[in-house]
Amino acid sequence: MTAISELGEFGLIRHLTENIKSKNDSTTFGIGDDCAVLDYCDRRTLVTSDMLMEGIHFDLVYTPLKHLGYKAAVVNFSDIYAMNGTPRQLIVNIAVSRRFSVENLDDIYSGLLLACERYGVDLVGGDTSASVTGLALSLTCIGDAKAEDVVYRHGAKETDLICVSGNLGAAYLGLQLLEREKKVFEGKNIDETSAQPDFSGHEYLLERFLKPEARKDIVERLRDAGIRPTSMIDISDGLSSELLHICKASQTGCRIYEERLPLDYQTALCAEEFNMNVSTCALNGGEDYELLFTVPLTDHDKIAQIDDVREIGYITKAELGTALIGRGDAEEIPLRAQGWDAAESGK
Amino acid sequence: MTAISELGEFGLIRHLTENIKSKNDSTTFGIGDDCAVLDYCDRRTLVTSDMLMEGIHFDLVYTPLKHLGYKAAVVNFSDIYAMNGTPRQLIVNIAVSRRFSVENLDDIYSGLLLACERYGVDLVGGDTSASVTGLALSLTCIGDAKAEDVVYRHGAKETDLICVSGNLGAAYLGLQLLEREKKVFEGKNIDETSAQPDFSGHEYLLERFLKPEARKDIVERLRDAGIRPTSMIDISDGLSSELLHICKASQTGCRIYEERLPLDYQTALCAEEFNMNVSTCALNGGEDYELLFTVPLTDHDKIAQIDDVREIGYITKAELGTALIGRGDAEEIPLRAQGWDAAESGK
Repeated sequence: MTAISELGEFGLIRHLTENIKSKNDSTTFGIGDDCAVLDYCDRRTLVTSDMLMEGIHFDLVYTPLKHLGYKAAVVNFSDIYAMNGTPRQLIVNIAVSRRFSVENLDDIYSGLLLACERYGVDLVGGDTSASVTGLALSLTCIGDAKAEDVVYRHGAKETDLICVSGNLGAAYLGLQLLEREKKVFEGKNIDETSAQPDFSGHEYLLERFLKPEARKDIVERLRDAGIRPTSMIDISDGLSSELLHICKASQTGCRIYEERLPLDYQTALCAEEFNMNVSTCALNGGEDYELLFTVPLTDHDKIAQIDDVREIGYITKAELGTALIGRGDAEEIPLRAQGWDAAESGK
Repeated sequence: MTAISELGEFGLIRHLTENIKSKNDSTTFGIGDDCAVLDYCDRRTLVTSDMLMEGIHFDLVYTPLKHLGYKAAVVNFSDIYAMNGTPRQLIVNIAVSRRFSVENLDDIYSGLLLACERYGVDLVGGDTSASVTGLALSLTCIGDAKAEDVVYRHGAKETDLICVSGNLGAAYLGLQLLEREKKVFEGKNIDETSAQPDFSGHEYLLERFLKPEARKDIVERLRDAGIRPTSMIDISDGLSSELLHICKASQTGCRIYEERLPLDYQTALCAEEFNMNVSTCALNGGEDYELLFTVPLTDHDKIAQIDDVREIGYITKAELGTALIGRGDAEEIPLRAQGWDAAESGK
């Protein structure tokens, strides 16, 4: 018997899917990217799906149900944007145990529908059923893109610039703050629990974790500027892990600069408060849902004009490996896919 | 606070979805049928999704994991056929707790892939994650059909013939047999448990429950015979419940004849063994995954030529209500949506 933990998440997915072959002409691209790509016409249909389990992916002690619904939807939209597409339809499956009421489901739906409203997506179906314990959500999002616009993970080329939107590590520290307050709260007597946790100065970090946004704006700005990324992925498991996905799929290496990692001021302060290395938070903290992409070197000037996008390094030959260049060009540190272990972080 | 049980499954779905409006031109039809219909081109894209929770929808005491995978896939394909479409792609999300091994997941996948192979469907993606307790499966199937071929629930017209494929009630009795043997098994001492349950003479019923098939063949035969159903649905919750869906969506009534309900010989024998009314099993037993559809009266002669399809009644004006005509035309019994309570039957 092989324990699932022996394979690890990506090993398990590879193990389960490596012999799957496509049979239909309409299956342009199956397993191995943010979305499956289906050819139904002159436009490609993009499909992505995610499952969220209580106690693994979220903790209802500090996650309002409306936020949970909003985030579950946005995370799926983010996968469609990461293919340079537009999300169009959402299908929502929910299973709940007896401790959940109709009002609880209303809260989840109000979050889902708010996200659909903001991103122009139609909720087109789904399944609602019982569960023995806890809450389970499974969402499927369908989108489209012109065939020539679809951006995969595998298109990065040597000398391409590596770019990232927004800033990194904020959602990870937001989660650390929530976990810390939860522990404090659990340790208190009943009399003391009326005291509300104090998150002042950290609002931005909590919002990044509890109510992330998909970077629709970045995809639109790139299109308006006439930039077509050569590869793209959304950052759900941490920058290192995602960049390694791009390099592996594209058969390249890379160099990124520690000093160019985009950080928010609150992220830096909070990392210090937790005695953490802020670069580690930015490299390995997940759930920021920023976009990581590569563009040809010739697009450097255009990228410089785009708000909220930063060049953090460049693509190399595969033989040069994948590394972070420390501050002051001091040393090269190999990138590791430490990733984002939802099973641990969610505890 | 409103308990979910107060609304019931369909009431809950209506409650959650009644205010949802489509925003995109490509959303031809959203919530309210077996599939969402999306207009991406001259062909319609069909999407359906189902969630299966351990302890609610299946019991691993008597459900081999390979069968579970096979059935989970087939149930989704059945929804695509019920729209007169062809399933093309499948997306599989699985969450498992620590008691499951890689080999367990292999078994599930082998069933999923066997179903995909048999029905010509591509597995194009999905998510595999942890669960605190038990196994959860969420599948999404995508298919297509020519725009003019899509058959909804709402197209039935007065005088249309009501037809059903195969036979009914077999899966329900298969489940009763498995539940009975489970109770016997649980009541025994350890010494006695080496005795295997004896299902001889009931093999067909067990297969109907554990390894159902989607009626791809019926959809093809109807097409070959030039018959386009005016409405269609697959029977997952029981004939009564599904026929009421068609009548409600089509704003019609109906009459069906008890003596025309299609029954297998094993179903009749087993119902007697359980002291159950076999018509009740056929009307309310779920999970047969046969097709229920209506055709214009003028197709009567063509339908008579089609193997394994039976006319069981006709569509009426709405004012005449929905009823079963008892044997010998003795009495009219109003149809009730007793349905198929997976939460109870799965216990």
